[in-house]
Amino acid sequence: MSHFSDGVAGSMKAVVLLSGGLDSATVLAIARAQGFECHALTVAYGQRHSVELECARRVATAGGAVEHRTLHVDLRAIGGSALTDDIDVPKEAPTEGAIPVTYVPARNTVFLSLALGYAEVIGASDLFLGVNAVDYSGYPDCRPEFVAAFEALANLATKAGVEGTRFRVHAPLLGLTKPEIVAAGLRLGVDYALTTSCYDPDPDGGACGSCDSCRIRAEAFSSLGVPDPAGRGPGGR
Amino acid sequence: MSHFSDGVAGSMKAVVLLSGGLDSATVLAIARAQGFECHALTVAYGQRHSVELECARRVATAGGAVEHRTLHVDLRAIGGSALTDDIDVPKEAPTEGAIPVTYVPARNTVFLSLALGYAEVIGASDLFLGVNAVDYSGYPDCRPEFVAAFEALANLATKAGVEGTRFRVHAPLLGLTKPEIVAAGLRLGVDYALTTSCYDPDPDGGACGSCDSCRIRAEAFSSLGVPDPAGRGPGGR
Repeated sequence: MSHFSDGVAGSMKAVVLLSGGLDSATVLAIARAQGFECHALTVAYGQRHSVELECARRVATAGGAVEHRTLHVDLRAIGGSALTDDIDVPKEAPTEGAIPVTYVPARNTVFLSLALGYAEVIGASDLFLGVNAVDYSGYPDCRPEFVAAFEALANLATKAGVEGTRFRVHAPLLGLTKPEIVAAGLRLGVDYALTTSCYDPDPDGGACGSCDSCRIRAEAFSSLGVPDPAGRGPGGR
Repeated sequence: MSHFSDGVAGSMKAVVLLSGGLDSATVLAIARAQGFECHALTVAYGQRHSVELECARRVATAGGAVEHRTLHVDLRAIGGSALTDDIDVPKEAPTEGAIPVTYVPARNTVFLSLALGYAEVIGASDLFLGVNAVDYSGYPDCRPEFVAAFEALANLATKAGVEGTRFRVHAPLLGLTKPEIVAAGLRLGVDYALTTSCYDPDPDGGACGSCDSCRIRAEAFSSLGVPDPAGRGPGGR
């Protein structure tokens, strides 16, 4: 956990799930633009791409979060994903309609649960999550009905629910394509050079350039006619 | 994680959340009695009463679980409870209608999320949870509407939801008082000597005998006219 000095006194608190990737960096900028005092939460879940954690720290600072906490949960104990197990990360586009092997079982449910606990402790009633239209084509926990169901749960699961406060779960990227997300972030001044997207980086954190996530990122910058400021080829860093 | 040898081939798999306490030991017995092949999951969340983890391991073995996994999640990173922070555990009954300081923010949401991920990985569609009527007087995430909301979420959050399988969240103790729980467990042969209930044990794992949890346990055995087999005074262990 680290505390920064630019807190906004008196403003509404929000918990922003921050992965170190492009989407959640954009979400942090959107939450800030909406006037929220942002408390960033990064979940270290045993992912192979732990370079994300360092990126998340930098994105939190640059993006004006008042606080950044990293919470460790070892999802390797239950396995089941190419992102935490010894399953190879695929280098081609996933089959249409199929759930990718990079899907982590119940990941967004776990992440939102932890964000909810953090929100209760600090007195926030707004949660921000970077799920989007590209993800939700293959991941069940990236669909609008999932977000709505979690919001309903949050209002039953907590002291706030008992005491009458309403939790809101914001997924501002839900209806956006990746180029639209990048365009929104560039307008809000997001420094994408600090973000990483690769599912399978080399030991130095360099992007592989060929996994699904690298490919979608490269196509987004390319379609906008903007170079990826991360600079190290497709996938960035 | 440990594997046991008494697996029931071909039966339906269930994930049973096991804390090492009296309630979840009873739930494991109930799930087994219903014919489920039980995969026990214990969440190590930075609780002060870590003696629970060792009790959980013994309860899993004695209770016929085919497997027991312990998953670490450090809820101390978000704080907010007497069970994980340096807040004193109270030695008197909580105020009627108030939420006790031993409430851990979003704990059951986090636990069920992790159980859901585990269930997806092993192909189980039944989750068992030991929430009960005594707990739900003060804890928002021990109410029947919370359990129902989580079941709805589970069916949207997962591959199963996409592929048409239905998750069921079982909370068989929900309507039972503590004496009814103990009576049910004794009928099913639960060895309560292996369980612990104290929120504030001494360094050797001995029960304090005066916290809310110790008191409720002692009253339950006393009302049944049965000695607590844990033997070390009220609270057990």
